[in-house]
Amino acid sequence: MTSFRHLKSVIRLNELAEDPYDLTKEGAVTPKRIDTMISEALGFQLFYAMERVSDITLTALSDLAEETQAVKKMTEMQAGEIVNFIEGHESEKRPALHTAMRDFFEQRNASSKAKEATELAYKECEKLRAFLNEIEKTNQYTDMVQIGIGGSELGPKAVYMALEAFHKPGRRVHFLSNVDPDDGSHIFHQVDLEKTLVVVVSKSGSTLETLTNEQFAREKFKKAGFNPKNHFLAVTGKGSPMDDPQQYAASFYMWDYIGGRYSATSMVGGVILAFALGMDRFLEFLRGASAMDKIALKADPKANLPLLSALLGIWNRNFLTLPTTAIIPYSQALSRFPAHLQQLDMESNGKRIDKKGHPVDFDTGPIIWGEPGTNGQHSFYQSIHQGTTVVPLEFIGFKESQYRDDILFQGTTCQEKLLSNLFAQSIALAVGQQNDNPNKFFPGNRPNRILFGERLDPYAMGAILAYYEHKVAFQGFMWNINSFDQEGVQLGKKLALKIIDQFATLKQGKPIDPKGFPLGAAYLKHIEKVK
Amino acid sequence: MTSFRHLKSVIRLNELAEDPYDLTKEGAVTPKRIDTMISEALGFQLFYAMERVSDITLTALSDLAEETQAVKKMTEMQAGEIVNFIEGHESEKRPALHTAMRDFFEQRNASSKAKEATELAYKECEKLRAFLNEIEKTNQYTDMVQIGIGGSELGPKAVYMALEAFHKPGRRVHFLSNVDPDDGSHIFHQVDLEKTLVVVVSKSGSTLETLTNEQFAREKFKKAGFNPKNHFLAVTGKGSPMDDPQQYAASFYMWDYIGGRYSATSMVGGVILAFALGMDRFLEFLRGASAMDKIALKADPKANLPLLSALLGIWNRNFLTLPTTAIIPYSQALSRFPAHLQQLDMESNGKRIDKKGHPVDFDTGPIIWGEPGTNGQHSFYQSIHQGTTVVPLEFIGFKESQYRDDILFQGTTCQEKLLSNLFAQSIALAVGQQNDNPNKFFPGNRPNRILFGERLDPYAMGAILAYYEHKVAFQGFMWNINSFDQEGVQLGKKLALKIIDQFATLKQGKPIDPKGFPLGAAYLKHIEKVK
Repeated sequence: MTSFRHLKSVIRLNELAEDPYDLTKEGAVTPKRIDTMISEALGFQLFYAMERVSDITLTALSDLAEETQAVKKMTEMQAGEIVNFIEGHESEKRPALHTAMRDFFEQRNASSKAKEATELAYKECEKLRAFLNEIEKTNQYTDMVQIGIGGSELGPKAVYMALEAFHKPGRRVHFLSNVDPDDGSHIFHQVDLEKTLVVVVSKSGSTLETLTNEQFAREKFKKAGFNPKNHFLAVTGKGSPMDDPQQYAASFYMWDYIGGRYSATSMVGGVILAFALGMDRFLEFLRGASAMDKIALKADPKANLPLLSALLGIWNRNFLTLPTTAIIPYSQALSRFPAHLQQLDMESNGKRIDKKGHPVDFDTGPIIWGEPGTNGQHSFYQSIHQGTTVVPLEFIGFKESQYRDDILFQGTTCQEKLLSNLFAQSIALAVGQQNDNPNKFFPGNRPNRILFGERLDPYAMGAILAYYEHKVAFQGFMWNINSFDQEGVQLGKKLALKIIDQFATLKQGKPIDPKGFPLGAAYLKHIEKVK
Repeated sequence: MTSFRHLKSVIRLNELAEDPYDLTKEGAVTPKRIDTMISEALGFQLFYAMERVSDITLTALSDLAEETQAVKKMTEMQAGEIVNFIEGHESEKRPALHTAMRDFFEQRNASSKAKEATELAYKECEKLRAFLNEIEKTNQYTDMVQIGIGGSELGPKAVYMALEAFHKPGRRVHFLSNVDPDDGSHIFHQVDLEKTLVVVVSKSGSTLETLTNEQFAREKFKKAGFNPKNHFLAVTGKGSPMDDPQQYAASFYMWDYIGGRYSATSMVGGVILAFALGMDRFLEFLRGASAMDKIALKADPKANLPLLSALLGIWNRNFLTLPTTAIIPYSQALSRFPAHLQQLDMESNGKRIDKKGHPVDFDTGPIIWGEPGTNGQHSFYQSIHQGTTVVPLEFIGFKESQYRDDILFQGTTCQEKLLSNLFAQSIALAVGQQNDNPNKFFPGNRPNRILFGERLDPYAMGAILAYYEHKVAFQGFMWNINSFDQEGVQLGKKLALKIIDQFATLKQGKPIDPKGFPLGAAYLKHIEKVK
């Protein structure tokens, strides 16, 4: 594949970027533009009239998708081809088969690799259903604590919070991730151990934080006179050190073709979500995700929402050269979803080499951040409207609330006020405002789009999750980078182990060998002096 | 004042930025550099050896502080001079006297304006103490819901979460901010109204979200047969529509010289924090903040931690041209502190004009984002280490945990593992790693610094809060922008009201006048069609 910067479509897009569509010009943003620039699928509308694109830009972006064979690569990914590799160098050489974890519904994937993975995944779902039925009988457990970090926390937690309105009454869940001991203390202050299940999630069974927190939790149970074995569940690779019936009441499996950040629809999210929501709602969530997987296979970007979003993101990132993207759900339930997307996107696409191992000469994944609206309006929107760094925004909104518990105040409901703010911001950011007072001047041309659905229910949440998974994967395909590895996390881990050794040495009353890792020792020397 | 780009020190810094200190060079980062590049105050150490600065850079930065009279402006701010203005244009023309809200301890400010503000603030503290003593007697209230948005939520919530380990047993607090009705439904599902106090926070008494949520909450009480008047408290400006004994059991005051994002140490944070922690711990928190206020008056940047941090931030922003800054506390209790700083910094310094009303020709406040470590390591650190956009990091860490509830696992405690990760990341990001496998190559030169304290207690939290308040104010002083207004939030509000009117019109069964606000109407037309 030709490198990104030399693609014909990229050269064309660079020309177009010299004079991008000016949303602030008289007549540039019209009702007709809003009417025309909508894509629809699965009950969602993607409004993109407030992006700095013309029909010509959209055609060139479409050419980019074609030239990079983005949809073909998505098809290969969903069929279980090896997509996680760096050519000519040691690398993971794996498929990325998260779509198989939920391919239980319509239009199942016909490839044998995908089918096999789906069958295995379905077995785990059946195992989970049986397990939950069993504990339902005695109704002994009110609380579940998930111990896991990164993808074993962020996705499941974001989805859990998004769907709290649908949870089974009397069930509470908690997430323990940080090796900070205060994280565990805080959680175990709140639960009745007798009524608590602990799910330990680690594919390899070797994540430092997770092992440490498991130990922390097991000691709590032991001290209170409970046998941890009866309370602990494992989600891990088959045959990993954690796949051990002596230690866990049950084990649920995941596989090396499921990356942590793509694992929310596997057992990594499954155990805790099905405990909280019930199995049927968890399956609804999977159904929504699977439906979006099929949308991601459509050739036409206009019909393929994740691909269209990926292209608009590339336009903003590589051609308008904007360094960040903010995800702003106008939905309080999605308050932690930006944190999940931060991992999903930045860990997938925060890369500096292409799939041939060559350093890239263009920008890859942006910095992803965000908070819910309207809250953000009273926080960072000052900078969004008038700051010197332009931030493209991806809004998410819903016609209806989750609880359907609303009031009429001054002629409108809360939900209507919420939506009014969403649309007003979309317009204000794009078109700006002229004013003689320079402090009331708004430059506009802040690109944004809105993913809009009917109501945030389990099906919709699955669809949104998959929409973002595929948006990120598509961008990786078009940049020709590997979105499925994370070598960049290794150096910090390695050095941390050296400093842990230095702490352990100090604890034994021995001096640190300063030659081992002098910079670590230098920091420690100062810490020892504190108080 | 000469405009930023033409300052002598800025011209010098631009020269130095052509060849910034290279942290990846053999011998560039040594134990001696770590030993030398530390500033200390109030039991905190600021480690900055991993910033891309030499002694020459630091001297030039020091000159910038002097040339812009940064400390003189801080002194004026704390003395109650008018710092919130735009010359020659309609503007707020107010002091910014948040330091007076806590100036109850050593070295009180001698200026009459500051003294007067402090006396008023102290009266509110006394009123609060009396009120809390009164409710303590009957012990009727277990829960407090704070209704407020922006600064009325973010700062108080971040501080509350930071100090949850110190809260009074049996007391719970909740924050209701979003106009999304699901936010309120979710909270009122969790509380027993009879035992609940509601604090409504709005300086003007006119914030749309807050008024709407207050109404939402009052209806819950009325429906349940309780008189809201007995349960509702107001934090507002004296004489505002909310200063009404017919509606509230008590009112606590704030003033127009306290910006929302600087209000956590006023009654905006005071009522809920003192309810949760007790009055004495709230005062300890104020004592820490006030002590840092005095540090911010020191002339020497080396002794003035917030000023030093501000200068390093300007170096990264304007000279290394880095668009974002990540705040990464290695402390789970500070998990929402980055969200507070996002408002504090971006609303203060996300500005496009200087104090004379001229558009700036340099970058102002960066995009602020962040999550706690070690969690971030398993999320976005891939991009931090190997992404194409360099992100400077501000770490925060503590020697001891809050709960002092820890285990020994494989030779070290959780807290030691946490700190090992913090220091390892600081080093890894700075020095990088050479490797023949391009995927294991780490470019390094990712600048970072660490604010390190003994333990996150109320005093330390106050100090850290004020450290950031002053860092942000110092940057505004040096850029000569107004860090205390927020005109950039007005346009969105104005357009939202137009769409709210359109919703109200539809509700009455009337057609929208498309000429009123055609773009709003265009969005609404599509929403009406959903399901």
